[in-house]
Amino acid sequence: MFDILIKNAELITNDESKPLITCGYIGIKDGRIAFISDSLPENAEAREVIDGRNKIAMPGLVNAHSHSAMTLMRNYADDMALEKWLFDNIFPVEAKLTDKDVHWGTMLGISEMLKSGITAFADMYMFMDEVARAVTETGIKANLCKSPVQFFEDGQLKRLDKSQGTIDYYNSYHNSADGRIKVFVEIHSVYMFNENTLRNAAQLAKQLNTGIHIHLLETVAEVESSNKDYGMTSIEICRETGVLDVPVMAAHCVHLTDSDLRIMQEKKASVVHNPTSNLKLGSGIARVPDMMDMGINVCLGTDGAASNNNLNMFEEMNLAAILHKGIAMNPQLMKAQDVLKMGTVNGARAIGFDDTGVLSEGMKADIILVDTDKPHFYPKNDPMAMIVYSAQAADVDTVIVDGSILMKNREFTHIDEEKIKFEVESLSKRLLGR
Amino acid sequence: MFDILIKNAELITNDESKPLITCGYIGIKDGRIAFISDSLPENAEAREVIDGRNKIAMPGLVNAHSHSAMTLMRNYADDMALEKWLFDNIFPVEAKLTDKDVHWGTMLGISEMLKSGITAFADMYMFMDEVARAVTETGIKANLCKSPVQFFEDGQLKRLDKSQGTIDYYNSYHNSADGRIKVFVEIHSVYMFNENTLRNAAQLAKQLNTGIHIHLLETVAEVESSNKDYGMTSIEICRETGVLDVPVMAAHCVHLTDSDLRIMQEKKASVVHNPTSNLKLGSGIARVPDMMDMGINVCLGTDGAASNNNLNMFEEMNLAAILHKGIAMNPQLMKAQDVLKMGTVNGARAIGFDDTGVLSEGMKADIILVDTDKPHFYPKNDPMAMIVYSAQAADVDTVIVDGSILMKNREFTHIDEEKIKFEVESLSKRLLGR
Repeated sequence: MFDILIKNAELITNDESKPLITCGYIGIKDGRIAFISDSLPENAEAREVIDGRNKIAMPGLVNAHSHSAMTLMRNYADDMALEKWLFDNIFPVEAKLTDKDVHWGTMLGISEMLKSGITAFADMYMFMDEVARAVTETGIKANLCKSPVQFFEDGQLKRLDKSQGTIDYYNSYHNSADGRIKVFVEIHSVYMFNENTLRNAAQLAKQLNTGIHIHLLETVAEVESSNKDYGMTSIEICRETGVLDVPVMAAHCVHLTDSDLRIMQEKKASVVHNPTSNLKLGSGIARVPDMMDMGINVCLGTDGAASNNNLNMFEEMNLAAILHKGIAMNPQLMKAQDVLKMGTVNGARAIGFDDTGVLSEGMKADIILVDTDKPHFYPKNDPMAMIVYSAQAADVDTVIVDGSILMKNREFTHIDEEKIKFEVESLSKRLLGR
Repeated sequence: MFDILIKNAELITNDESKPLITCGYIGIKDGRIAFISDSLPENAEAREVIDGRNKIAMPGLVNAHSHSAMTLMRNYADDMALEKWLFDNIFPVEAKLTDKDVHWGTMLGISEMLKSGITAFADMYMFMDEVARAVTETGIKANLCKSPVQFFEDGQLKRLDKSQGTIDYYNSYHNSADGRIKVFVEIHSVYMFNENTLRNAAQLAKQLNTGIHIHLLETVAEVESSNKDYGMTSIEICRETGVLDVPVMAAHCVHLTDSDLRIMQEKKASVVHNPTSNLKLGSGIARVPDMMDMGINVCLGTDGAASNNNLNMFEEMNLAAILHKGIAMNPQLMKAQDVLKMGTVNGARAIGFDDTGVLSEGMKADIILVDTDKPHFYPKNDPMAMIVYSAQAADVDTVIVDGSILMKNREFTHIDEEKIKFEVESLSKRLLGR
C-alpha cells in the first residue's frame, strides 16, 4: 500500500540509467520513492492517487542561495547604483526589521517558492530562529546558516566572534524538522570578515562537521578590496584560512581568475550561480561554462527578492541556459539537461541533502508535477527543453516534499496564503514608510 | 452607457501626464477608451463591469517580431549550432508545411500570445493568407507582411520578383478585420535579396504607402556576407536601395557599427530587440542602451518559438531590463518604465498602429489586466517594477482588444483551445516524424 501513487506522468528523473520515462508511475511510502517504473506494479494500491496525464513529474527545484525575508523589500528600490540601493534603501529598512517581520517575510518567500516548484532552499539572513520556525511549519526543506561574527553592537561596526551562538543554533536545528533542516556556518563574505574570523569560522565548521555558506567575488569592488586587504584574491584567502577545507557553497563567484577556478575545482567547492541578480545589480557574468568544463558543481539561486525581484527558479534555469550561449556566441553550451541538473540535484548536493534531487527508489520523495496542457508547451517534444525553455513557475501544479503534498492544483494544503499576504502588506507600511 | 467599465484597478497608462493611477476607472465604448480617471463618472452605467481590485490594468503587449507558426517546431531542436539547427532540422520541416499546418500553428501561437497578454504582433512567414485568416478569426491585431521575392521554384533556389502577389495581399488585407490588420512588405534579409530586389521591394513599399519588415544584422555571418556581397554593411545597402526611406521595423540589429546606428537614427527606423532568441542562438547582444540614448524607437519581439521557445513578452521585458545592466555593469540602465514602453507603445508605433499602446481617451481599448494577488507580487510597491521584474505571463487575467474581451479569468471567450492543441499535436506527428 503506497501513501501516494503518481500515474501516467512523463518523468524527468536525473537518473543516468533512465533519464526520461514517457509514461511513468511513482509509488511513495514513508516519505521516500518506493517504486518507479514505466509500468504499474501489480495490485498497486494507494491512499491517494495523482493523475499525471498531461503532466511532467520531476525532482523539486533547489534554490541554493536566497535571503527569503528580503521579499519584504521587493520592487521597493530598483534601477539604481549598487551603493544607493544598499546604503540608502536596503540597509535602513533592514535596521528596522524585527523577528516578527522576518517571520512573515520568510513565510511569504516560502509560499512563493513552493508555488514555483522549489522544494528546498538555502537561506542566509538575520533572526534565523524565525527562519527555522517558518521552515518547520511549512514543510519545505532548507539549509540555514548562522554567522559566528556579529558586525554591529551598540550601533558600532565591530567584529565580535560569538561562536557559541552558532554552536547553539546548530545544535537546535541541524537535522531538525524530521531532517528537513541542515545548518551550515555563515561567512557573509571575505570583506565583512578578517583573517582571524575567517580562520575561526572555518575551524568552527570543521568542529561541527558541517559546511559553509558564503558570498564570494560578487563584484569588482570585492576583487579590489580583497587585493588591498589581504594581498590576494578572496578565493586565495579562503584557501589560506581553511574555509575551503569543508563543504562550501559559494554564492555568485562572478569574478574568478583561472587560478581561482582551479582552487575551487581542487577543493570541490560548489558554486551558486545567480544570473538574474548578477545582471540586475550590474555585477557581471560568472564564467559558468568554464566551471562546468572543470567539473565544478554549479547550482542555481535566486538571491533575495530585493535584487531579482522574485524567487522563480524557472527564470533562473532559462536565463542560465541562454545567457552563456549568447555571451560566448555558442548555442551548444549549457544544454537543457545540464541546466536541469543545476536547478535540482546539483543544488541538493551543495546544500547538504544527498538523498534527494533524483527520482529513483530509496530517494526522498521531493517531487513536483508541471501541468503541460497549455498552449506554450505544444506540440510536445523534448520534455527537458519544455521545462528549461518554455515553462513558467505558474505551470507547477503539485508539490510534494518528503512524501507530503504541500500544494495540489496550485492550492496550498495547509499554508494560509491569505493571512501571509495580509500580514506582509500590513507590516510593510511601517517598514517602507508608505 | 459604456460597453465595459473597469473599476478600482491600478493603472499603468504610458500617458506622460499621468503615468500611474493607484485606483482607476476605464470606460470603453465602440472599441475605444471613452473615459479614464481616478474617480468614477457620475451615473456610470455599463453592459459589463470588470472588478479591477488586486489587478493592474495596462496597455496590451506588442510582440513586434515573430513567426507564429514556428510554434510547430517548439522544443524540437535545441542546443545545437545554428547551421545544424536551421539546415538539418528547421528547413526540412518547413519544406513539408502545408497551408493547413500554418493555419493551426498560427492559431496555437495566437492562443499562447493572448494568454500571455499580447494584443498585437508582427508576423513574417509563409502561407500568409492563413495567418490573416487566423488573425481575423481570433480577434487579435497584427502586422503581416508578404515578400515580393520568391526564393524557390521547382525546388531550385531562384530569386523571382513577384510584386503582384504582394500588391494583391496588401489590397486584400491591409486595414481588414475592422482595421486590426496592417500589411507591410517583407524583405526577409539583405543576404536573401540582392541589390535589384532590395530596390524593387523598397519601391513597392513606397508605392503602397506602407512599411517594411526585415531581419537585419542578426549574426556575424551576415556582417561578413554583406561586406563580401555588397562591399558595405547591411544598413548601408538598405540606405542605398531606398529600404530605409519608408517605415522600417528591423528585427535583431545585433551587429551594428556606430555609423550604422547613426543611419538608423537619421532614417527613424524601428529596431525590434529579440533578447531571448539572440542569446539562445548564440547570435550576440544588441547595443540597445546606445540605441535608446540616440532616441531610436526600440521595441521587443519573441522571434519564433523554435528559437525561444515560447512567445512570452514578460520574459522578453525582464530579460531586456536586466541583460544590458549586466553587460554594461550599470544597474541604472534600462529602467522599468522604459522597458514597459518597449513592450507596448514603442511596438505599436513600429508595427503601424498609432491609436493604441497608451491608456488615454480616444485610444483603442487594447488593455490587459494582470492579477497581482499572488505571493510573488507582495508587498505591493512600484507597479512598473512589479510588471517588469516580478510578473509572469500566467498572471494575465483578462485581455481586451478593440473593446472586445478575448480572455476573461484566463479562459478564452471564443477560441477553441482544446481543438487547437489537438490539431497541432496530430499534425506534428507527420511533420516531426514522431
